[in-house]
Amino acid sequence: MNAQSPRRSGGRSARRAARAAPLAQDIRPIRAGMEGGQYKPLTDSDMMRIHETALDALEQIGLADAPQSGIDILTAAGALLGEDGRLRFPRALVEDMLAKACKTISLASRDGTHDLQLSGNRVHFGTAGAAVHMVDIDTEDYRDSTIQDLHDAARIADQLDNIHFLQRPMVARDIKDNKEMDLNTIYACCSGTTKHVGVSFTEPSFVPDALEMLHMIAGGEDAWRARPFVSNTNCFVVPPMKFATESCEVMEACIQGGMPILLLSAGMAGATAPSTIAGAIVQATAECLAGIVYVNAISPGHPAICGTWPFGLDLRSGAMSVGSGEQALLSAGCAQMHKFYGLPGGAAAGASDSKLPDMQAGWEQMCSNVMAGLSGLNMVYEAAGMHASLLGFCHESLILGDDLIGQALRSVRGIEVDEETLALEQIRDVCLNGPGHYLGTDSTLSRMQKDHVYPTLGDRTSPKEWAELGKPNLLEKAKSRKEQILSQASAARFSPDLDQALRARFKIHLPH
Amino acid sequence: MNAQSPRRSGGRSARRAARAAPLAQDIRPIRAGMEGGQYKPLTDSDMMRIHETALDALEQIGLADAPQSGIDILTAAGALLGEDGRLRFPRALVEDMLAKACKTISLASRDGTHDLQLSGNRVHFGTAGAAVHMVDIDTEDYRDSTIQDLHDAARIADQLDNIHFLQRPMVARDIKDNKEMDLNTIYACCSGTTKHVGVSFTEPSFVPDALEMLHMIAGGEDAWRARPFVSNTNCFVVPPMKFATESCEVMEACIQGGMPILLLSAGMAGATAPSTIAGAIVQATAECLAGIVYVNAISPGHPAICGTWPFGLDLRSGAMSVGSGEQALLSAGCAQMHKFYGLPGGAAAGASDSKLPDMQAGWEQMCSNVMAGLSGLNMVYEAAGMHASLLGFCHESLILGDDLIGQALRSVRGIEVDEETLALEQIRDVCLNGPGHYLGTDSTLSRMQKDHVYPTLGDRTSPKEWAELGKPNLLEKAKSRKEQILSQASAARFSPDLDQALRARFKIHLPH
Repeated sequence: MNAQSPRRSGGRSARRAARAAPLAQDIRPIRAGMEGGQYKPLTDSDMMRIHETALDALEQIGLADAPQSGIDILTAAGALLGEDGRLRFPRALVEDMLAKACKTISLASRDGTHDLQLSGNRVHFGTAGAAVHMVDIDTEDYRDSTIQDLHDAARIADQLDNIHFLQRPMVARDIKDNKEMDLNTIYACCSGTTKHVGVSFTEPSFVPDALEMLHMIAGGEDAWRARPFVSNTNCFVVPPMKFATESCEVMEACIQGGMPILLLSAGMAGATAPSTIAGAIVQATAECLAGIVYVNAISPGHPAICGTWPFGLDLRSGAMSVGSGEQALLSAGCAQMHKFYGLPGGAAAGASDSKLPDMQAGWEQMCSNVMAGLSGLNMVYEAAGMHASLLGFCHESLILGDDLIGQALRSVRGIEVDEETLALEQIRDVCLNGPGHYLGTDSTLSRMQKDHVYPTLGDRTSPKEWAELGKPNLLEKAKSRKEQILSQASAARFSPDLDQALRARFKIHLPH
Repeated sequence: MNAQSPRRSGGRSARRAARAAPLAQDIRPIRAGMEGGQYKPLTDSDMMRIHETALDALEQIGLADAPQSGIDILTAAGALLGEDGRLRFPRALVEDMLAKACKTISLASRDGTHDLQLSGNRVHFGTAGAAVHMVDIDTEDYRDSTIQDLHDAARIADQLDNIHFLQRPMVARDIKDNKEMDLNTIYACCSGTTKHVGVSFTEPSFVPDALEMLHMIAGGEDAWRARPFVSNTNCFVVPPMKFATESCEVMEACIQGGMPILLLSAGMAGATAPSTIAGAIVQATAECLAGIVYVNAISPGHPAICGTWPFGLDLRSGAMSVGSGEQALLSAGCAQMHKFYGLPGGAAAGASDSKLPDMQAGWEQMCSNVMAGLSGLNMVYEAAGMHASLLGFCHESLILGDDLIGQALRSVRGIEVDEETLALEQIRDVCLNGPGHYLGTDSTLSRMQKDHVYPTLGDRTSPKEWAELGKPNLLEKAKSRKEQILSQASAARFSPDLDQALRARFKIHLPH
């Protein structure tokens, strides 16, 4: 700032001062639940054909391997058990259950400040997955993920505005007993964030203890059932077109316990689903419609997220690949099918095949995240931190993902067109009466907060400024932010009494 | 591959062998000119309002600073010269000239193999800009860009399938004389690639010599005029709403010389254009419509690309920012306006604010590139290699951009829905008669080439494979590819006779 430009200096100071003020919630430029839907990879006729083919698949091919309880429930509802052991679904049954299905799901946060309303084109981004490794950006090592890593991810996600929910992104491999792992997963996630949490129970017999823990955290069963702040991911099918017997039993127990569920069909296009994008969407749609029938046959209107969640594959190697344009299309196409049925839905986007948070990770994560958002996907799972085709999770990448998703959300918000934004009077004034530019005008200053998403760690300095700052490295900045967040006590931690009670009742692995 | 899985091993070997075979042009999964348009950030009514407001601005505010030649041309056509020196454009004049404007532009390549057809939603990605620095990824230095850097960029772009044209991305700062710089820019670009080249002449008096050089390269004026393989970027306005006097004179000379032109309006939203996205699009639209009137008043139907090319701004600092969601919306909204008018158009996308090809660069470049592609932008300028808010160009980033754009193009290609891709019979066969999976089926193998875009440098190995390979670094791989490309002779180099003639007639700075 030199002495020759007091006017400009004043403008810049004013802008910096305005920017420094905290943003009121109502003028934040982006938020959870913004409306996408401007991007439509499928035509209406495409969707109708996918729907009809999915109904054909359900009626003619059906699903194998339902548990006995599921066979009883589904045949009572009108499904037909064939001599080949497959359950087939008449169209009328599917249509009846679609009519009963929950169309608007409220996913509660523990503290009530981060509830998510799933309907229409409302978009939410969060973590998910079952990574088995933590990515160490200093050594570039992939090491086994632990319960502490999971808790730290929850604490970090709690502090990031654009991470709207925390579905468990990695498994605690330091806990060998599966039941202990499931219970500690709840503990580690919920004590790290008050945002909505997603978990996934390994066996049906673990559900009662898990519910007991959730009741304790909620302050009783009634409080839990009034605002269930944890949902369960049910991988209820083993594609192609088979029920996952045990996971179906878990699902039944969760429904009884009042947990919202995610009906997750995770086919791999070219391995466990057709290699074509349309075919993979057809199969995922058929499988999830079977799940919708199942859930609503048990409990009409129970909150169930339609989790058509097909993944890509590198057909050269047969290995999963999640960072491609094909993946982005799979998830965006699924989002449109959710709208077709009016069902709240989710799919995976934002994961990378790259092993590190490098340029490849950036482009892969943005490609599917922004396309998922623009397609109006209600729940964008795996949206941040996920690497190595879902095998590795990285805290620094999660932090950078918050910036990345911020720009994706700005894109989802779209272009407002009204008399003020069209700005004819402003153009007239600047050109005919004014200084010939828009810097520092009232119109510009009044919108600098509510229209623009400023990066937290992303760099916008000039090359000269950047060099003067010592050429700050993006990953180092993310690491500093991680250390800063983890150096503070978790804002979501349990009260001492509750914590003591939980530790007395369950074997909690996290240290006090 | 272990001895226990001969079947799978056979399948993988078959896939690898199939992949190794060169791809016939007709089954390449992506190519120049794929059709976007599935993403529509503006509604029909939004576009009509933008159009009406742009017409209001032209009629009521008009543009200042036309050269005398332009005043003569435009008033003869029906524009009104006000006492304030501004030219105002009646609606009927704009509509008449829109009717005369060129609706399909063929941009020729020098060898005829990379011609671009601009119309409808056909998408092409390429470089552009006027960076003044080269980014050195080893030292992280920004140094002055040179004519050799430009030539090397041309040679690299020539070898990258997803870079469809080479608009001069940086200026040769080692050539102090502007005329020599302009002439050497043509030489450096055209001797590096046979793809369509874009340049930008500094002064009208340089155009005759430039045309002489182009005639020599083409093999005579007739050959040049039949297939003009170089177009000129005319920054014909200085936003807001002023003609750039000298650039207009350059434009007139280029039109006489048979060069296709890019009518470039590069306002900065919040500085030289309204800060709102809609307002910036309105002003850019008005300015480019004035350009369309100008061009068609001189030569009806002359090929002119509608270059509504607004940039974002970080309102906190007043500095240009090109990597944001706001930027992606600006360019995608402009693409829709081109469709509204039926004009071939271009805008900027794919540039980054980051100083290096890091994760931020990846997400920024993908965000605007994929949104530009999905919106059907004909010419996506600045799509690769551009850093530091247009101040720096990076060869390694250009190479990585080819991979990034490959996935964006795959997204643009979209989802094919037909009986084969819906795959009902395949699902039936696999579930009821087959092995229970789709790996290695005829349907899968037959599509592994034509449906899937495989990265060239992007990594898809497992963490274990990656570690065994020594944890290859993405930037190092890009650097190796750069060295490999530059170690070979340019496939686009001029014949010895032509080169000798050019060097005899002009002062060529590049060494033999």
